[in-house]
Amino acid sequence: MEIALDAARAAAARGEVPVGAVVTDASGRVLAVAGNEVEARRDPSAHAEMLALREAARVTGDKLLPEATLTVTLEPCAMCAQAIAFFRVKRVVFGAYDPKGGAVEHGPRLFGQPTCHHAPEVVGGVRESEAGALLRDFFAALRS
Amino acid sequence: MEIALDAARAAAARGEVPVGAVVTDASGRVLAVAGNEVEARRDPSAHAEMLALREAARVTGDKLLPEATLTVTLEPCAMCAQAIAFFRVKRVVFGAYDPKGGAVEHGPRLFGQPTCHHAPEVVGGVRESEAGALLRDFFAALRS
Repeated sequence: MEIALDAARAAAARGEVPVGAVVTDASGRVLAVAGNEVEARRDPSAHAEMLALREAARVTGDKLLPEATLTVTLEPCAMCAQAIAFFRVKRVVFGAYDPKGGAVEHGPRLFGQPTCHHAPEVVGGVRESEAGALLRDFFAALRS
Repeated sequence: MEIALDAARAAAARGEVPVGAVVTDASGRVLAVAGNEVEARRDPSAHAEMLALREAARVTGDKLLPEATLTVTLEPCAMCAQAIAFFRVKRVVFGAYDPKGGAVEHGPRLFGQPTCHHAPEVVGGVRESEAGALLRDFFAALRS
Protein backbone atom coordinates (compact mmCIF):
# COMPACT_ATOMS: atom_id res chain seq x y z
CA MET A 1 0.00 0.00 0.00
CA GLU A 2 2.96 2.33 0.54
CA ILE A 3 3.79 2.02 -3.16
CA ALA A 4 0.17 2.72 -4.11
CA LEU A 5 0.10 5.76 -1.79
CA ASP A 6 3.30 7.03 -3.39
CA ALA A 7 1.70 6.67 -6.83
CA ALA A 8 -1.35 8.56 -5.55
CA ARG A 9 0.85 11.37 -4.21
CA ALA A 10 2.68 11.54 -7.55
CA ALA A 11 -0.70 11.74 -9.33
CA ALA A 12 -1.75 14.66 -7.11
CA ALA A 13 1.50 16.45 -7.95
CA ARG A 14 0.56 16.15 -11.65
CA GLY A 15 -2.91 17.60 -10.98
CA GLU A 16 -4.64 14.23 -11.16
CA VAL A 17 -7.16 12.92 -8.64
CA PRO A 18 -4.80 11.16 -6.21
CA VAL A 19 -5.43 7.46 -6.63
CA GLY A 20 -2.60 4.97 -7.00
CA ALA A 21 -2.54 1.25 -7.75
CA VAL A 22 0.03 -1.52 -7.72
CA VAL A 23 -0.19 -5.10 -9.00
CA THR A 24 1.96 -7.72 -7.27
CA ASP A 25 2.45 -11.39 -8.06
CA ALA A 26 2.11 -14.37 -5.71
CA SER A 27 5.54 -13.72 -4.22
CA GLY A 28 4.83 -10.03 -3.64
CA ARG A 29 6.95 -8.88 -6.57
CA VAL A 30 5.71 -5.64 -8.11
CA LEU A 31 4.45 -6.16 -11.68
CA ALA A 32 3.04 -2.71 -12.32
CA VAL A 33 2.44 0.63 -10.62
CA ALA A 34 0.21 3.41 -11.87
CA GLY A 35 -1.48 6.60 -10.77
CA ASN A 36 -4.53 8.18 -12.28
CA GLU A 37 -3.83 9.63 -15.74
CA VAL A 38 -7.26 10.95 -16.64
CA GLU A 39 -6.00 14.50 -17.27
CA ALA A 40 -2.66 13.61 -18.84
CA ARG A 41 -4.28 11.22 -21.33
CA ARG A 42 -7.53 13.20 -21.56
CA ASP A 43 -9.20 9.84 -21.02
CA PRO A 44 -11.81 9.41 -18.27
CA SER A 45 -11.16 5.65 -18.32
CA ALA A 46 -7.46 6.06 -17.43
CA HIS A 47 -7.94 5.11 -13.79
CA ALA A 48 -4.90 3.86 -11.89
CA GLU A 49 -6.34 0.34 -11.66
CA MET A 50 -6.98 0.03 -15.41
CA LEU A 51 -3.48 1.20 -16.26
CA ALA A 52 -1.83 -1.06 -13.67
CA LEU A 53 -3.82 -4.14 -14.75
CA ARG A 54 -3.00 -3.64 -18.43
CA GLU A 55 0.67 -3.07 -17.63
CA ALA A 56 0.82 -6.17 -15.39
CA ALA A 57 -0.66 -8.30 -18.17
CA ARG A 58 1.87 -6.84 -20.61
CA VAL A 59 4.77 -7.54 -18.24
CA THR A 60 3.73 -11.12 -17.52
CA GLY A 61 2.75 -11.82 -21.12
CA ASP A 62 -0.43 -13.42 -19.79
CA LYS A 63 -3.76 -11.72 -20.23
CA LEU A 64 -5.06 -13.17 -16.97
CA LEU A 65 -3.63 -12.45 -13.53
CA PRO A 66 -5.01 -15.28 -11.36
CA GLU A 67 -2.22 -15.08 -8.77
CA ALA A 68 -2.08 -11.31 -8.58
CA THR A 69 -3.05 -8.85 -5.88
CA LEU A 70 -4.23 -5.38 -6.88
CA THR A 71 -3.64 -2.82 -4.15
CA VAL A 72 -5.32 0.54 -4.71
CA THR A 73 -5.77 3.57 -2.50
CA LEU A 74 -9.51 3.96 -3.20
CA GLU A 75 -12.41 1.53 -3.47
CA PRO A 76 -12.68 0.66 -7.19
CA CYS A 77 -15.54 1.99 -9.33
CA ALA A 78 -17.75 -0.26 -11.45
CA MET A 79 -15.48 0.05 -14.49
CA CYS A 80 -12.39 -1.01 -12.57
CA ALA A 81 -14.21 -3.67 -10.53
CA GLN A 82 -15.48 -5.33 -13.71
CA ALA A 83 -11.99 -5.13 -15.23
CA ILE A 84 -10.61 -6.78 -12.07
CA ALA A 85 -13.07 -9.63 -12.66
CA PHE A 86 -12.10 -9.87 -16.36
CA PHE A 87 -8.39 -10.05 -15.47
CA ARG A 88 -9.26 -12.75 -12.86
CA VAL A 89 -7.32 -10.93 -10.15
CA LYS A 90 -7.01 -13.07 -7.01
CA ARG A 91 -7.14 -10.39 -4.35
CA VAL A 92 -8.05 -6.71 -4.10
CA VAL A 93 -6.77 -4.57 -1.24
CA PHE A 94 -8.08 -1.03 -1.13
CA GLY A 95 -7.63 2.00 1.10
CA ALA A 96 -10.45 4.51 1.42
CA TYR A 97 -14.08 3.52 1.03
CA ASP A 98 -15.97 5.44 -1.66
CA PRO A 99 -19.69 5.67 -0.85
CA LYS A 100 -20.32 7.89 -3.91
CA GLY A 101 -18.42 6.07 -6.64
CA GLY A 102 -17.27 2.76 -5.21
CA ALA A 103 -18.77 -0.42 -6.64
CA VAL A 104 -17.26 -3.06 -4.36
CA GLU A 105 -18.71 -2.27 -0.94
CA HIS A 106 -21.15 0.38 -2.22
CA GLY A 107 -23.59 0.98 -5.08
CA PRO A 108 -23.87 -2.06 -7.37
CA ARG A 109 -21.49 -4.18 -5.18
CA LEU A 110 -20.32 -5.75 -8.38
CA PHE A 111 -18.56 -8.84 -7.03
CA GLY A 112 -21.76 -9.91 -5.28
CA GLN A 113 -23.91 -9.71 -8.44
CA PRO A 114 -25.23 -13.07 -9.66
CA THR A 115 -23.87 -12.16 -13.11
CA CYS A 116 -20.33 -11.66 -11.79
CA HIS A 117 -18.23 -14.55 -13.11
CA HIS A 118 -15.19 -13.96 -10.87
CA ALA A 119 -15.11 -12.45 -7.40
CA PRO A 120 -11.68 -11.75 -5.90
CA GLU A 121 -10.93 -11.76 -2.20
CA VAL A 122 -11.41 -8.20 -0.96
CA VAL A 123 -9.79 -6.37 1.94
CA GLY A 124 -10.94 -2.77 2.34
CA GLY A 125 -9.93 0.08 4.63
CA VAL A 126 -6.17 -0.57 4.60
CA ARG A 127 -4.44 2.70 5.61
CA GLU A 128 -7.85 4.21 4.94
CA SER A 129 -7.19 7.49 6.74
CA GLU A 130 -4.03 8.28 4.74
CA ALA A 131 -5.62 7.37 1.42
CA GLY A 132 -8.74 9.36 2.28
CA ALA A 133 -6.76 12.38 3.50
CA LEU A 134 -4.91 12.56 0.17
CA LEU A 135 -8.24 12.81 -1.67
CA ARG A 136 -9.80 15.28 0.81
CA ASP A 137 -6.73 17.54 0.67
CA PHE A 138 -6.71 17.42 -3.13
CA PHE A 139 -10.37 18.43 -3.48
CA ALA A 140 -10.10 21.03 -0.71
CA ALA A 141 -7.21 22.65 -2.58
CA LEU A 142 -9.25 22.64 -5.83
CA ARG A 143 -12.11 24.48 -4.11
CA SER A 144 -9.93 27.03 -2.30
CA MET B 1 -25.44 -0.14 -36.52
CA GLU B 2 -24.32 -1.44 -39.92
CA ILE B 3 -20.84 -0.04 -39.23
CA ALA B 4 -20.80 -1.64 -35.77
CA LEU B 5 -21.93 -4.97 -37.26
CA ASP B 6 -19.15 -4.74 -39.85
CA ALA B 7 -16.64 -4.15 -37.03
CA ALA B 8 -18.05 -7.16 -35.19
CA ARG B 9 -17.71 -9.33 -38.33
CA ALA B 10 -14.12 -8.13 -38.74
CA ALA B 11 -13.44 -9.01 -35.09
CA ALA B 12 -14.78 -12.53 -35.64
CA ALA B 13 -12.50 -12.92 -38.66
CA ARG B 14 -9.53 -12.12 -36.37
CA GLY B 15 -10.66 -14.71 -33.81
CA GLU B 16 -12.12 -12.15 -31.44
CA VAL B 17 -15.54 -12.35 -29.81
CA PRO B 18 -17.62 -10.51 -32.44
CA VAL B 19 -18.62 -7.23 -30.87
CA GLY B 20 -18.27 -3.94 -32.71
CA ALA B 21 -18.81 -0.34 -31.65
CA VAL B 22 -19.00 3.03 -33.33
CA VAL B 23 -19.09 6.53 -31.86
CA THR B 24 -20.86 9.24 -33.84
CA ASP B 25 -21.22 12.96 -33.15
CA ALA B 26 -24.40 15.04 -33.03
CA SER B 27 -24.54 15.22 -36.83
CA GLY B 28 -24.05 11.48 -37.25
CA ARG B 29 -20.43 11.77 -38.35
CA VAL B 30 -18.33 8.74 -37.38
CA LEU B 31 -15.67 9.64 -34.80
CA ALA B 32 -14.37 6.15 -34.05
CA VAL B 33 -14.99 2.51 -34.93
CA ALA B 34 -13.60 -0.49 -33.06
CA GLY B 35 -14.03 -4.21 -32.69
CA ASN B 36 -13.05 -6.33 -29.72
CA GLU B 37 -9.25 -6.63 -29.43
CA VAL B 38 -9.01 -8.76 -26.28
CA GLU B 39 -6.93 -11.45 -27.99
CA ALA B 40 -4.83 -9.19 -30.21
CA ARG B 41 -3.84 -6.96 -27.29
CA ARG B 42 -3.93 -9.78 -24.73
CA ASP B 43 -5.99 -7.37 -22.67
CA PRO B 44 -9.36 -8.44 -21.25
CA SER B 45 -10.36 -4.78 -20.96
CA ALA B 46 -9.95 -4.16 -24.70
CA HIS B 47 -13.68 -4.26 -25.42
CA ALA B 48 -14.92 -2.55 -28.56
CA GLU B 49 -16.69 0.15 -26.55
CA MET B 50 -13.60 1.08 -24.50
CA LEU B 51 -11.45 1.34 -27.63
CA ALA B 52 -14.04 3.36 -29.55
CA LEU B 53 -14.65 5.78 -26.66
CA ARG B 54 -10.93 6.43 -26.15
CA GLU B 55 -10.41 6.93 -29.87
CA ALA B 56 -13.38 9.30 -30.14
CA ALA B 57 -12.01 11.41 -27.27
CA ARG B 58 -8.61 11.45 -28.98
CA VAL B 59 -10.13 12.49 -32.31
CA THR B 60 -12.24 15.29 -30.83
CA GLY B 61 -9.52 16.43 -28.43
CA ASP B 62 -12.16 16.56 -25.71
CA LYS B 63 -12.17 13.99 -22.94
CA LEU B 64 -15.96 14.17 -22.65
CA LEU B 65 -18.41 13.19 -25.40
CA PRO B 66 -21.68 14.83 -24.32
CA GLU B 67 -23.13 14.97 -27.85
CA ALA B 68 -22.03 11.51 -28.90
CA THR B 69 -23.92 8.32 -29.59
CA LEU B 70 -22.25 4.99 -28.94
CA THR B 71 -23.70 2.21 -31.09
CA VAL B 72 -22.58 -1.28 -30.12
CA THR B 73 -23.71 -4.72 -31.24
CA LEU B 74 -24.03 -6.14 -27.69
CA GLU B 75 -25.42 -4.79 -24.42
CA PRO B 76 -22.44 -3.24 -22.60
CA CYS B 77 -20.91 -4.90 -19.53
CA ALA B 78 -20.38 -3.05 -16.23
CA MET B 79 -16.89 -1.91 -17.22
CA CYS B 80 -18.06 -0.38 -20.48
CA ALA B 81 -21.29 1.01 -18.99
CA GLN B 82 -19.34 2.83 -16.27
CA ALA B 83 -16.90 4.12 -18.90
CA ILE B 84 -19.88 5.37 -20.95
CA ALA B 85 -20.99 7.33 -17.86
CA PHE B 86 -17.46 8.70 -17.32
CA PHE B 87 -17.24 9.87 -20.95
CA ARG B 88 -20.72 11.47 -20.51
CA VAL B 89 -22.01 9.81 -23.68
CA LYS B 90 -25.44 11.15 -24.65
CA ARG B 91 -27.01 8.05 -26.15
CA VAL B 92 -26.29 4.32 -26.24
CA VAL B 93 -27.79 2.12 -28.95
CA PHE B 94 -27.11 -1.57 -28.61
CA GLY B 95 -27.98 -4.72 -30.55
CA ALA B 96 -28.27 -8.02 -28.70
CA TYR B 97 -29.31 -8.20 -25.05
CA ASP B 98 -26.80 -9.96 -22.79
CA PRO B 99 -28.53 -11.55 -19.78
CA LYS B 100 -25.24 -13.11 -18.60
CA GLY B 101 -22.82 -10.21 -18.86
CA GLY B 102 -24.85 -7.11 -19.67
CA ALA B 103 -25.05 -4.35 -17.08
CA VAL B 104 -27.52 -1.97 -18.70
CA GLU B 105 -30.77 -3.96 -18.83
CA HIS B 106 -29.45 -6.88 -16.75
CA GLY B 107 -27.39 -7.56 -13.64
CA PRO B 108 -26.42 -4.36 -11.85
CA ARG B 109 -28.38 -2.13 -14.33
CA LEU B 110 -25.68 0.42 -13.82
CA PHE B 111 -27.39 3.51 -15.21
CA GLY B 112 -30.23 3.06 -12.73
CA GLN B 113 -27.96 2.88 -9.68
CA PRO B 114 -28.35 5.82 -7.27
CA THR B 115 -24.54 6.22 -7.41
CA CYS B 116 -24.55 6.61 -11.20
CA HIS B 117 -23.71 10.25 -11.94
CA HIS B 118 -24.63 10.19 -15.65
CA ALA B 119 -27.23 8.04 -17.35
CA PRO B 120 -27.36 8.17 -21.15
CA GLU B 121 -30.49 7.59 -23.21
CA VAL B 122 -30.57 3.88 -24.04
CA VAL B 123 -32.11 2.07 -26.99
CA GLY B 124 -31.62 -1.70 -26.92
CA GLY B 125 -32.46 -4.49 -29.33
CA VAL B 126 -31.57 -2.69 -32.57
CA ARG B 127 -30.91 -5.35 -35.24
CA GLU B 128 -30.80 -7.68 -32.28
CA SER B 129 -31.16 -10.88 -34.28
CA GLU B 130 -28.19 -10.14 -36.57
CA ALA B 131 -25.95 -9.05 -33.68
CA GLY B 132 -26.95 -12.09 -31.64
CA ALA B 133 -26.51 -14.49 -34.57
CA LEU B 134 -22.93 -13.29 -35.04
CA LEU B 135 -22.16 -14.19 -31.42
CA ARG B 136 -24.02 -17.52 -31.50
CA ASP B 137 -22.27 -18.56 -34.73
CA PHE B 138 -18.89 -17.59 -33.29
CA PHE B 139 -19.30 -19.62 -30.11
CA ALA B 140 -20.88 -22.54 -31.97
CA ALA B 141 -17.80 -22.67 -34.25
CA LEU B 142 -15.50 -22.60 -31.20
CA ARG B 143 -17.28 -25.60 -29.70
CA SER B 144 -17.43 -27.63 -32.90
